[in-house]
Amino acid sequence: MGEERKGGGGGEEAAAAAARAAEQARELQDAAAALLTRTRAEEEALRRRAAALQGELRRLRKAAAHADSDKVEEDLDRATCLITDGDVASLLPSKTHGAFLKMFLGPVNLRATRKEVQLKVKEEYNSYRDRTALLFLGFPVILLFLRQWLWNGCFPALPVQLYQAWLLFLYTTLALRENILRVNGSDIRPWWILHHYCAMLMALISLTWEIKGQSQPDCARKQRGVELFLCWAIMQGFVMMLQNRYQRQRLYTRIALGKAKRMDVVWGETAGVEGQLLLLCPLLFLLQGFEGYVGFLLLRTAHTGVIPEWQVVVCGILLIAMAIGNFAITVDTLMVKSRFKAKMKKSKGKRDLDTCPSATGSSPTDSTGKA
Amino acid sequence: MGEERKGGGGGEEAAAAAARAAEQARELQDAAAALLTRTRAEEEALRRRAAALQGELRRLRKAAAHADSDKVEEDLDRATCLITDGDVASLLPSKTHGAFLKMFLGPVNLRATRKEVQLKVKEEYNSYRDRTALLFLGFPVILLFLRQWLWNGCFPALPVQLYQAWLLFLYTTLALRENILRVNGSDIRPWWILHHYCAMLMALISLTWEIKGQSQPDCARKQRGVELFLCWAIMQGFVMMLQNRYQRQRLYTRIALGKAKRMDVVWGETAGVEGQLLLLCPLLFLLQGFEGYVGFLLLRTAHTGVIPEWQVVVCGILLIAMAIGNFAITVDTLMVKSRFKAKMKKSKGKRDLDTCPSATGSSPTDSTGKA
Repeated sequence: MGEERKGGGGGEEAAAAAARAAEQARELQDAAAALLTRTRAEEEALRRRAAALQGELRRLRKAAAHADSDKVEEDLDRATCLITDGDVASLLPSKTHGAFLKMFLGPVNLRATRKEVQLKVKEEYNSYRDRTALLFLGFPVILLFLRQWLWNGCFPALPVQLYQAWLLFLYTTLALRENILRVNGSDIRPWWILHHYCAMLMALISLTWEIKGQSQPDCARKQRGVELFLCWAIMQGFVMMLQNRYQRQRLYTRIALGKAKRMDVVWGETAGVEGQLLLLCPLLFLLQGFEGYVGFLLLRTAHTGVIPEWQVVVCGILLIAMAIGNFAITVDTLMVKSRFKAKMKKSKGKRDLDTCPSATGSSPTDSTGKA
Repeated sequence: MGEERKGGGGGEEAAAAAARAAEQARELQDAAAALLTRTRAEEEALRRRAAALQGELRRLRKAAAHADSDKVEEDLDRATCLITDGDVASLLPSKTHGAFLKMFLGPVNLRATRKEVQLKVKEEYNSYRDRTALLFLGFPVILLFLRQWLWNGCFPALPVQLYQAWLLFLYTTLALRENILRVNGSDIRPWWILHHYCAMLMALISLTWEIKGQSQPDCARKQRGVELFLCWAIMQGFVMMLQNRYQRQRLYTRIALGKAKRMDVVWGETAGVEGQLLLLCPLLFLLQGFEGYVGFLLLRTAHTGVIPEWQVVVCGILLIAMAIGNFAITVDTLMVKSRFKAKMKKSKGKRDLDTCPSATGSSPTDSTGKA
């Protein structure tokens, strides 16, 4: 205690308190290190057991393939569900993160261990899509309105470029979030992520696309491509809002019935194809047709030399490719659904394909109190 | 077993095996759920202990402020270090993720619990910067070279736009990764992240900037801004390579001496200011001066009406702002260092400011085997 220069009588007391605090910190550090080591070892043991059981299940499934027993299939399904959708799942090595996430974020772990956190990510994704749909609808409406009432029939460059920059940002975030959902066990179809990569590319290209502003003669004709694109965006926003509402309801219904893994993303122009089918399906096909048509018009303007830039050609091709892909996957989903219904009718079974009926043993509070 | 239709004798056996597998899966699920619950409870207990100890440390530090005792200060420092840099740190609520990460990724947890993973993220960030520096150097060199030998003194638009798109991607990923490092306990200076936001904005704006291609008369003069920007990028790449090499060496030395928290990012134009100071410091100031000069030239071209677009003005202002900020933080770092040296001389103490000398109790294998 020779180091004390001021402080008098309180010095010794303070020194003792500080020493005690340092000792407590050391104990805390030891406890934390021990907990981490122990947890890791126990996780590793469970992981090994799960891997062994998965191997066994694969073997049994192969053996049971020709023995058409409902009971065996049910047992195997239940076991598989428990492993892939239960608490064990969070300990298993996750799906690879994929090149896109690695490129943007590096080798960081994006898998949430807790089911609640995974659900929060999913929830946030849904509400993000809601907000997005509003902007998707509002942004082009405002642009088209202002062109008519303020800008005398021709867009100035800046607002359009702001919109394009927003699109680039939007599609980047959607692609990132969907990749994160995939890592967390969602079975979103790869096409929708690929679709967003295409849209990112298109937004990026459209930014480099010179917009003939109001100073140019004949600007209304030269801006025909932009105008068509905005019309398509309005339709897209409208359909997105309908879908979001419908799909969220549907997801909650399915969760409540214990029929959906809760990380399912019922995303995209195809998923909402039952129930409100009468309204959604024609709209989806109309949208896809219009998307392809806008692409075709872009190619034609490039061909006739009105806007001879390469950006127009590439955007046109991308739009047509996305339209074809969307159409193909919508039809595919419809086919799968009708085949599934036929199978259900034939077997009169109650089992749901790809789903884990109330397998996780989780409390019902997860599924109620939401819709 | 009435459900079996085919399979004969093997049927019963298969059913038994499947039932056993289902039972094992159930046990595994229970074990995993129990482990998660127990771990969470123990973590929560440690978290509470840590919070209480942190409060106690704050109180003691306040009380010890006027009692100038080296021993007390040392004890308090050691305790603080153990909590903020040890295994307990991973259990404490992390720094908020910040609006940028939330905007791009949603509410996902990016904090790694294990020190090794955190180090891997840091390692990857360093090697990403190495690769980046090479491209940063190579891309503009090739562009300038081709302009002279292939393109007759004028850039075509596409390669320049590709470069700008790459810059936008690069700065976005750097900003994302640095934010992730911050969440994981790195004390990277906020200015460097802000700097990358500015650079992102500049890259985005430059994409919308119409490039007067080879078809335009007087294109060489109109492309003066692009040319200057590329020259600056070459210098930037060169300095980045020097810095990366030097800072990595320095970081490893400091880790080996137990003087740095291993998540420290020794990033930016300021950090490498000792040792190879003679080489780096003049280069840094030169670079910052040149950055500001390019910004000034851009403003002048806009003023004289050669390229009258708003993009030129905004890019010019951003470049000047970044140059001033970089200069200010470099000077600030130099000042802090010299004040620190003076203080060290005066007190002849061995303690290092802001660092936790071998506090984590981690094995030396973390710091060796790397340099």
